Amino acid sequence: MVRVLGVDPGTAACGYGVVEKVGGRFVALDYGLIRTAHTAPTADRLQTIYREISAILERWRPDRVAVEELFFARNARTAMAVGQARGVVLLAAALGGVPVVEYTPLEVKKSVTTYGRGRKDQVGHMVALILGLPEVPHPDDVADALAIALCDGLRAEAGLGAVP
Amino acid sequence: MVRVLGVDPGTAACGYGVVEKVGGRFVALDYGLIRTAHTAPTADRLQTIYREISAILERWRPDRVAVEELFFARNARTAMAVGQARGVVLLAAALGGVPVVEYTPLEVKKSVTTYGRGRKDQVGHMVALILGLPEVPHPDDVADALAIALCDGLRAEAGLGAVP
Repeated sequence: MVRVLGVDPGTAACGYGVVEKVGGRFVALDYGLIRTAHTAPTADRLQTIYREISAILERWRPDRVAVEELFFARNARTAMAVGQARGVVLLAAALGGVPVVEYTPLEVKKSVTTYGRGRKDQVGHMVALILGLPEVPHPDDVADALAIALCDGLRAEAGLGAVP
Repeated sequence: MVRVLGVDPGTAACGYGVVEKVGGRFVALDYGLIRTAHTAPTADRLQTIYREISAILERWRPDRVAVEELFFARNARTAMAVGQARGVVLLAAALGGVPVVEYTPLEVKKSVTTYGRGRKDQVGHMVALILGLPEVPHPDDVADALAIALCDGLRAEAGLGAVP
């Protein structure tokens, strides 16, 4: 039985979701959005993300942290902003002794939708369906974080193993 | 009198330099390169950078940490790799209670060279000259880190103030 924390990092908003298979089905133990004040210095925003992710790791003690590889960034500036947030998330995992696994966006979509290149909202709907959530997780960052966690959980179950 | 830690972040190699004005001239109190093993997982590499930067902050207790804004990345992948390293450096500063200042690459070059758009090796030579170093700091990451720290120190001296 594997418990996975999925994270969709960003400096302004960082989605997270903790999933585990309980009694034959996957459930979401916790999920939400870490928001940071856009008026705050970048270093302070990163500190907020680091503290929140560290607290989530401490509370739920997942076996793995799953994040998306970022192949397709809109531009270098966006990539750097995402990279900064991703860096402190990976650091929190390393300092907490939790292994990190990475999946491509396509692997994540494939694992939660029937169609490899599903529309954005299909991911949210499938995540809600698989996890038995009362509604589609909102915003996309939260749905994506749950999808990343589910991707790892579903692959582990299928014996595909994680990509460390 | 201001003591500044300049950092040129990267996941593989992270240059750093601590400068301070002592007896009418700028001196380098410490400088070097933090290297990480390319065979190690990214999270572990970021942890190495975080620990080393935290140790440098602890040892030298600078008034400010200075980094370059990254406007011009070769591509999104490079930007994300730099962003991750930059993220843990900024986090180390925030957790250490040290303010972060940012300068554009052009501001850094202007402050240490007579010519705004100097060649890469001019920065190293000027850094060595200003700091009275026996030779040009090597590799570029170290020279750049010292240049960033000097940029902040020289601007503070000129009453230009820092850009927080």
